Amino acid sequence: SSTLSKAIVSGAIRQVMLCKDRDGKCGLRLHSVNNGVFVCYVAAGSPAALAGLRFGDQILEINNVSLAGMSMEQCHAILKKSPTNGITMAVRDRPFERTITLHKDSLGHVGFQFKNGNIVGLVKDSSAARNGLLTDHQILEINTINVVGMKDKEISKVIDDGPTVVNVTVIPQYIYKHMINKMSNSLFKELDRTPAV
Amino acid sequence: SSTLSKAIVSGAIRQVMLCKDRDGKCGLRLHSVNNGVFVCYVAAGSPAALAGLRFGDQILEINNVSLAGMSMEQCHAILKKSPTNGITMAVRDRPFERTITLHKDSLGHVGFQFKNGNIVGLVKDSSAARNGLLTDHQILEINTINVVGMKDKEISKVIDDGPTVVNVTVIPQYIYKHMINKMSNSLFKELDRTPAV
Repeated sequence: SSTLSKAIVSGAIRQVMLCKDRDGKCGLRLHSVNNGVFVCYVAAGSPAALAGLRFGDQILEINNVSLAGMSMEQCHAILKKSPTNGITMAVRDRPFERTITLHKDSLGHVGFQFKNGNIVGLVKDSSAARNGLLTDHQILEINTINVVGMKDKEISKVIDDGPTVVNVTVIPQYIYKHMINKMSNSLFKELDRTPAV
Repeated sequence: SSTLSKAIVSGAIRQVMLCKDRDGKCGLRLHSVNNGVFVCYVAAGSPAALAGLRFGDQILEINNVSLAGMSMEQCHAILKKSPTNGITMAVRDRPFERTITLHKDSLGHVGFQFKNGNIVGLVKDSSAARNGLLTDHQILEINTINVVGMKDKEISKVIDDGPTVVNVTVIPQYIYKHMINKMSNSLFKELDRTPAV
C-alpha cells in the first residue's frame, strides 16, 4: 500500500511545493546537522504538513538555492522572504532514519522496551531482536504516525491499537537530541501526527 | 548494473552461506553497537569476502541463533565452534550507512574535502553540496571499493580513476570510530577491497 511505502525510509530526493498560510507561515522548523539542513518540526494542519514534510527530511534547496552549510537562522530567513505562493524545495527522504518491520506475537508484543521514546532494551527471541532493532535509538514513527514528544504510554497505545505488522522508524539517539535541542515542550502539542496516506 | 545496485545501501535482509578456510577461519571481525552485531573487517580473499560481507553489515543470526545483545567475544566464539562447512547467516545490509551519487564537473571534481577519510568540507555549488553530502561522516566505499584505512591520496586516486558518476558510501563519524576501535593498522593492509560485481 501507499502507507507502507511511505513508512519505509527511501533516502530518495523529491520535489516539494508549498505555500504560506494566512499568517505567512509554513509551519516548519529546521535544524542544521553536519552542514545539512533538516526538518525538526512540522505543525499540525500547516502547509508543511499538507506538503508531506516529515521529521528528519533533509532540505537540499529552497527555490533553487542550495542550503549546504547554512545555519538554521539563514534558512528561516530564506523561508521568511520567500513569496507566499510557490515555494519549491528539493528534499531528501530522512537520511539519518531507518524503518524496521516487526510483527506482533500472539500476546501482541513486538519485543522492545523504551523510555521517553528511546529504545533501551530488547526481549530475547522477540520480533525486535530477530530483526536487529537497535538500542539507543529514538522512536520517531509507528506505522507513519509521528510519535515525537509523546508520552511512553501514548506510544504504547499507538502500537497496541495498530495492526499486527508494526513499522517502527528510528533515528540514532545522539542525532535526535541534537535535532530537538532548543525546542520547547509546548511545540510538541501542536505537532503534525497525521499518518501518511 | 549489478555493481550500481550493490553500491546502494538497501537495509534489506539477505541470507549468506560461508565456509571456513583451510586454517579454520572466516576472515571476519565483528563489533557490537547498540546491542547489534556488525562487520568491521573482511580479509581479502577470505570466505567472508567471497560471500559478499561488507563493512557495516549487521549480522542478525548465525546458524539460526539470534545475536541481539551479544558481545563480540560471544559472536567470535559462535563462529569458532561452527562447523567448517555451511555456516548460515541472516544479514541486514549496512543499517548505519548511506550512499550518495555524485557527478564530476568538467574539472573532474565532485566537491568535498576529507582528512583521514572523514568528510570535513563541502565546495559551494558542487555536486556534493547540491546532493546534501554531510560532513563528519567517514568515507567507506567509492563505487563499491572499500577505502577504509586508505591514505587520503589513495582515496583521491580511486575517485580520479573512476567514472564520472561517483557513488560515495558514508557512515557517521562517531559510529565509524566505535567500529574500528581496537583494530590495528596492520589489519587494514589485508582488507578486502574488491569492487562488487
